[in-house]
Amino acid sequence: MDRNNTPATVPEKIILGIDPGTNVMGYGVLKVEGKKAGMVAMGVIDMRKIPDGYLKLGHIFERVTGIISSYLPDELAIEAPFFGKNVQSMLKLGRAQGVAIAAAIQRGVPITEYEPTKIKVAITGNGAASKEQVAGMLQRMLHIPEEEMSKYMDATDALGAAYCHFIQLGTPKVEHSYKDWKSFVNENKDKIHK
Amino acid sequence: MDRNNTPATVPEKIILGIDPGTNVMGYGVLKVEGKKAGMVAMGVIDMRKIPDGYLKLGHIFERVTGIISSYLPDELAIEAPFFGKNVQSMLKLGRAQGVAIAAAIQRGVPITEYEPTKIKVAITGNGAASKEQVAGMLQRMLHIPEEEMSKYMDATDALGAAYCHFIQLGTPKVEHSYKDWKSFVNENKDKIHK
Repeated sequence: MDRNNTPATVPEKIILGIDPGTNVMGYGVLKVEGKKAGMVAMGVIDMRKIPDGYLKLGHIFERVTGIISSYLPDELAIEAPFFGKNVQSMLKLGRAQGVAIAAAIQRGVPITEYEPTKIKVAITGNGAASKEQVAGMLQRMLHIPEEEMSKYMDATDALGAAYCHFIQLGTPKVEHSYKDWKSFVNENKDKIHK
Repeated sequence: MDRNNTPATVPEKIILGIDPGTNVMGYGVLKVEGKKAGMVAMGVIDMRKIPDGYLKLGHIFERVTGIISSYLPDELAIEAPFFGKNVQSMLKLGRAQGVAIAAAIQRGVPITEYEPTKIKVAITGNGAASKEQVAGMLQRMLHIPEEEMSKYMDATDALGAAYCHFIQLGTPKVEHSYKDWKSFVNENKDKIHK
């Protein structure tokens, strides 16, 4: 009902990015307004001194639940490698991911996963970019102070996942691409009114 | 304060066994009194018709949380294979385990894992026993009606995990086994009073 031609209010959105590992978990929070994104928080949860596997998983669950309570994200983006060195490490990684996913599900936060390569491409344009290159780009694009960025290097992938999701949100989704009208008609017979 | 020599009250314990898979999740509930165990409930949660991976994980989380609320288990025993076909299936399995573990952690239920072979040995004495052999033994030992057991064949491993944990609880833990007094002395010099 935009009767006076005033610009529509740009909806605000909070994106939480998480890089769940068994020993170190990184997170980054982005605030998105239209085509602009700003960093709200980033951090690293170090679990290397927690001796027990369950205590580590419990810590991930509590911290992710806490971060969701603090920043009330509208969406969660996870950095999720689909390949790993061996079945053992993949099982461990799967558990860490599962616990973080459970914390989001419990609060009804929708989840999107991004492969590490996809995040690198979205941010630097190069799927083989180094961690430093990704961090450098994020730092410039989000105006993050140098000391903050170097303090939380392990949060780079998490912040990258959130940023990748932000870019994804702004990209119109092309469900199908049709070469020509004939192929469109062939695949959408119910949509063509004769 | 057992002044009248009356027998001490045998503490009751509820053990929940879970076999978390991505497509089918089995569960079994045992009530333990001293050296006796009885089956309280068993069931199978079929997620094969749930199309989305997150919805499946969400379903596991909700159902495990619900089962814990219903039966208030003192301990959770998980059937947990440590080896799998490939990294992809292990990541999926790890996620399913992680979500079930998160539900238990959230309610403060201690968790113990048992490898499939260990469960088979504990119940049948044979690590290569078939599913039917394990089911048959459990059915006899826990006096489960035939129709109940065949209805919930996919809950066999879960009930087996709970039963394996029950046996484990009654077994004095031998941290080390020593061949002779000399080797004991060598390894426990501080414990020998001269």
